Amino acid sequence: MKQPSSSLKYRLPVLVVILEVLLLSLYAGFVTYDDNANAKLQSNHTDPMDNSLYKDYLFFTDVQVMIFIGFGCLLAFMRLYGFGGMVFNFLTATFSIQWALLAQGFFHFHSDGKIHLGVINLLNAEFACAVVLISFGAVLGKTSPMQLLVMAFLEVPMFAVTEWAVLKYLKINDAGGSILIHLFACYFGLAVTRVLYRPGLSDGHAKESTCYQSDILSVMGTLFLWVFWPSFNSALALPGDDQHRAILHTFIGLSSSTLTAFALSALLSKRGKLTMADVQNVTLAGGVTVGASVDMMITPAAAFALGVLGCTACMFGYKYLTPFLARRLRIQDQCGIHNLHGLTGLISCFAGIVAILLASEDVYGPSMLPALQRLIPGIKAGEGRTAQQQALYQLAAIAATIGASLAGGALTGFVLKLPCLAQPPDEFCYDDEFFFEVPADYDNTGASETPCSPDEPKA
Amino acid sequence: MKQPSSSLKYRLPVLVVILEVLLLSLYAGFVTYDDNANAKLQSNHTDPMDNSLYKDYLFFTDVQVMIFIGFGCLLAFMRLYGFGGMVFNFLTATFSIQWALLAQGFFHFHSDGKIHLGVINLLNAEFACAVVLISFGAVLGKTSPMQLLVMAFLEVPMFAVTEWAVLKYLKINDAGGSILIHLFACYFGLAVTRVLYRPGLSDGHAKESTCYQSDILSVMGTLFLWVFWPSFNSALALPGDDQHRAILHTFIGLSSSTLTAFALSALLSKRGKLTMADVQNVTLAGGVTVGASVDMMITPAAAFALGVLGCTACMFGYKYLTPFLARRLRIQDQCGIHNLHGLTGLISCFAGIVAILLASEDVYGPSMLPALQRLIPGIKAGEGRTAQQQALYQLAAIAATIGASLAGGALTGFVLKLPCLAQPPDEFCYDDEFFFEVPADYDNTGASETPCSPDEPKA
Amino acid sequence: MKQPSSSLKYRLPVLVVILEVLLLSLYAGFVTYDDNANAKLQSNHTDPMDNSLYKDYLFFTDVQVMIFIGFGCLLAFMRLYGFGGMVFNFLTATFSIQWALLAQGFFHFHSDGKIHLGVINLLNAEFACAVVLISFGAVLGKTSPMQLLVMAFLEVPMFAVTEWAVLKYLKINDAGGSILIHLFACYFGLAVTRVLYRPGLSDGHAKESTCYQSDILSVMGTLFLWVFWPSFNSALALPGDDQHRAILHTFIGLSSSTLTAFALSALLSKRGKLTMADVQNVTLAGGVTVGASVDMMITPAAAFALGVLGCTACMFGYKYLTPFLARRLRIQDQCGIHNLHGLTGLISCFAGIVAILLASEDVYGPSMLPALQRLIPGIKAGEGRTAQQQALYQLAAIAATIGASLAGGALTGFVLKLPCLAQPPDEFCYDDEFFFEVPADYDNTGASETPCSPDEPKA
Repeated sequence: MKQPSSSLKYRLPVLVVILEVLLLSLYAGFVTYDDNANAKLQSNHTDPMDNSLYKDYLFFTDVQVMIFIGFGCLLAFMRLYGFGGMVFNFLTATFSIQWALLAQGFFHFHSDGKIHLGVINLLNAEFACAVVLISFGAVLGKTSPMQLLVMAFLEVPMFAVTEWAVLKYLKINDAGGSILIHLFACYFGLAVTRVLYRPGLSDGHAKESTCYQSDILSVMGTLFLWVFWPSFNSALALPGDDQHRAILHTFIGLSSSTLTAFALSALLSKRGKLTMADVQNVTLAGGVTVGASVDMMITPAAAFALGVLGCTACMFGYKYLTPFLARRLRIQDQCGIHNLHGLTGLISCFAGIVAILLASEDVYGPSMLPALQRLIPGIKAGEGRTAQQQALYQLAAIAATIGASLAGGALTGFVLKLPCLAQPPDEFCYDDEFFFEVPADYDNTGASETPCSPDEPKA
Repeated sequence: MKQPSSSLKYRLPVLVVILEVLLLSLYAGFVTYDDNANAKLQSNHTDPMDNSLYKDYLFFTDVQVMIFIGFGCLLAFMRLYGFGGMVFNFLTATFSIQWALLAQGFFHFHSDGKIHLGVINLLNAEFACAVVLISFGAVLGKTSPMQLLVMAFLEVPMFAVTEWAVLKYLKINDAGGSILIHLFACYFGLAVTRVLYRPGLSDGHAKESTCYQSDILSVMGTLFLWVFWPSFNSALALPGDDQHRAILHTFIGLSSSTLTAFALSALLSKRGKLTMADVQNVTLAGGVTVGASVDMMITPAAAFALGVLGCTACMFGYKYLTPFLARRLRIQDQCGIHNLHGLTGLISCFAGIVAILLASEDVYGPSMLPALQRLIPGIKAGEGRTAQQQALYQLAAIAATIGASLAGGALTGFVLKLPCLAQPPDEFCYDDEFFFEVPADYDNTGASETPCSPDEPKA
Repeated sequence: MKQPSSSLKYRLPVLVVILEVLLLSLYAGFVTYDDNANAKLQSNHTDPMDNSLYKDYLFFTDVQVMIFIGFGCLLAFMRLYGFGGMVFNFLTATFSIQWALLAQGFFHFHSDGKIHLGVINLLNAEFACAVVLISFGAVLGKTSPMQLLVMAFLEVPMFAVTEWAVLKYLKINDAGGSILIHLFACYFGLAVTRVLYRPGLSDGHAKESTCYQSDILSVMGTLFLWVFWPSFNSALALPGDDQHRAILHTFIGLSSSTLTAFALSALLSKRGKLTMADVQNVTLAGGVTVGASVDMMITPAAAFALGVLGCTACMFGYKYLTPFLARRLRIQDQCGIHNLHGLTGLISCFAGIVAILLASEDVYGPSMLPALQRLIPGIKAGEGRTAQQQALYQLAAIAATIGASLAGGALTGFVLKLPCLAQPPDEFCYDDEFFFEVPADYDNTGASETPCSPDEPKA
């Protein structure tokens, strides 16, 4: 198979150097330590164990494992694109977190005009990174590393602006990030892939398939995401009982969604067998669905029901909606992020609104107002919002987030079409050989001409 | 190879829906939040950082990694049953934890007739789940997912009753769960596999073998179990020095058992080579062996010796006892759980008794009685048990646990024979193709007709 | 292929038994619990949550994952040496930690002539273990397990003496262990491999290559090391802001080094493609480079720059220095540890000296002296060292460490040549079949005669 001369040799180094010079300049000019990391502000009277580090670091490492290992393995599900899935995830995640530290910090400048850096900033930046990686799922295997870096370069600040604006002006409750993270990431990614539409990929692709080992690797990624998802959904909740509930609800929602995924996978398969793509993706739907109400007093039973509901929507999305979007709307959603993050995110948002409308003194206790105020900054701000008004603000946040992400994604898509970003040609999609030195056995599976499951979208 | 029409298409969904309706009804009717997760009970005077969450969550995630990733990888050791090992472990574990939350909660109803849910319940439920997964090891590759779910459905409440009765009435010390977890799980699993005895599998099976990648994956599972085993053995110990000792002893016991396993593996192998099944299983024996005395003042040297002892018993068990049990008693113990959990568990129990008999003021200090009272609830209860009496109670607990597990396992085995649970026929044992859509390369290793190590039992 | 009769059958058991008898005797004679693990010293007035366990255990498990899973996967990068890489790492690490508990404890005997064991000792022992595993990288695939155990047996006490002498007499600042861990490990390993020089391996080896799955496994190892490296660099820093900065700097340094590694990998490759060996190793350079100044107020920008610098040195080292060392100095550095630990370690040391020289009241606050005293024990000791004097002491520590490690490594190399340690012959290097029972598919990749990347050194 004749290969075009490589596209990376100069383009990737030039782009990385530009980004690094930018990052280094901004670090040098605008970043200092936050009080908990600053020797100058620690005195003999400071108890070292009170440092914010010890509250945040556990959650930080859990989310790190999800981002680098969970996503990395999950995205390595393709037979000939294991390097690409795992390694481009590594590259994109690394850049996204660095860039998000600066972009998010810009909206929280201290009076001295500096970003004050602590582990809490890393934690927030990881969430911005998760946004980029979810969007990445829509274009997996069809993009060059230059395109991915530029996408991250544009998406991170767009997300940071949206996050800042929605939290500051609409003051919503979204502890698990169902609105800000999952909806933004999903619709951004869909807009990008719509703009990058490729007729040549619309009938499937010989290399777009899994193999036995890649399926197992991808399930490992799922398991890492599953195990640490409670940390993801609770990391930014308030310490104490709020964080405690977030963990319980996420665990229960994931569990019911996993059981449902196995049932539906057998039921909807032609031969009544389990499909690995379902095990890899649909099991996780419950983690997203509980997100927007994860720290509220929704009851464990409601968390269970939300998991079942989210999983069902996600499964039918993979089965019917993804092919429809691809055929009719020319949205080639590689990993089906619209199912795992879009549909579930929307359900989560509406569940969050219901939870706000149903909040009562009976449940939250005589101190209901303070309790709700802690959960929902809009009420906290003393603006006297009623639950109904807060529900409207949540709706407004959904609309604003989807609007911003669609616009941003479309714009980003057009930028990614720049020839200098060297999008791989159709015949080299889903193919490590195009970007990597590959070992001799890389395609000796004998399966190269007989794709095993070319029509299974995954994420 | 002609395949029977699949057994899962309706059976699995129907069973899952029944179980989910049951779980959801019980959640709705009987589960609420515990005080640390209840907004109603938190006031302005509550310090959020005092929440029990922060004491339990670290141990919870460690054990989660063991259950979903450690067990999952370890059980994926077979060449053609990687999906089955990892994915049925996922399904079984998810259901078991949910079900255990309710079953264990039933024995700790609060005065309001509700189960009060917190992370500590999740932690306890994980241990019940570990019981099911250990038993699963005896029937790996020979059971349908319906059988596994029904086994979990029966085993979890039987375990919960036994646990409750033994702890309430016999008041034993068993921080690492050697009696309650390992012995119960082992003898339950052996009884199940005895009842499910299959003559067709008694001469080995062409598919019952490993391949290079599956062996490596399985060692990764071992390493995850190894790394987090100190958390497993200490999670339910008392905070402070007891938990501290539990971690030290587990680490030392695992280490000496690992060194011994390498030595014996080379010594007992025909050609003097290391056997991967030994590395995957026997190395872990020390973690079980220190269990029953893990929080006592047994000295680091004793923990070291226990690791060597447990490993030796486990290794000879694999070599001589497992084949004997299979041939003479028709107990087809697929992963050799009797070696890794039964023999080691028994040694651990007797070591625990010795530790109780040898407890002296010289070691525990002038506050020996309070210290021992904390460790051993029987003494704590002010019933004036002497060490000798406590030793008899520990023996009674061993007998009761083994008795209950054998009876429960036999009963469960008969239920699992129900035709509607669709046990796979002999020729489709150890074969992912029977339950999964498999990629094209799934059996192109060229090794399908030449099993590499059909006679190596593993766990 | 005719195989020599195995070398392990009696040699490995005999060696392990000798070592175990030694360990057990020393445990029995000299090891007791430290105050936080001793029931005797806990009273009703002790708050269990104040136990040092809760400060150290999180870092301990993070480093455990690095050692057993991170190193294990990373070293399994060879096509036919996956068992060896992962399993010999397991064996060597297990022994090294046990042995280091005793060797390091010897230098901190309490007045009662006993080693007082707590989780903090395990943490320190893990660092000694990391030293052995880094050195292991130089001789990977060319050594028998007996040689590895003897190497650990000699290296651990040599490291413990050096560590004790340098910290006690030179009183240097080296929170991330760049001097003591990375330089010692690197030059020790180089000296060993120099003494073990094999002409037969100087032109490459047919089995010295990767395959697709082994490359992916190795990247997973890299990701585990990457994710938990901040814990590694901060575990021994002072609690509070020092530890907080160590985490921030490590994360930033790793990130900039990762971005740089991708750029240089594409730029320096003949066909402009990414090389997996670079992704697996060079990305990690930043973690070492920030080590010696990781807890100082060096600014985030400096951490970023150090990551770029270290990565660049490491990459050019792999490209030009490793081949040079192999050809001219007969140093066959299998994994290129001189690039990832030596060059980066040296840069780190000099950065640490600059950080000391530039320390000013402007940065550390009016309490600069106490702050610096906390960071740099030499100043703390009230010996009135100036920054310039401290810089000279740091230089002396570098020289002393390199000297001790070269001498110790050379000596160890000569011991490893003893015929009873059964070094594998050239033709069975990098070959699991020599030491393990291997499954039938172990070399059916069809690539056995066409090494894919025999000239890519890796670590």
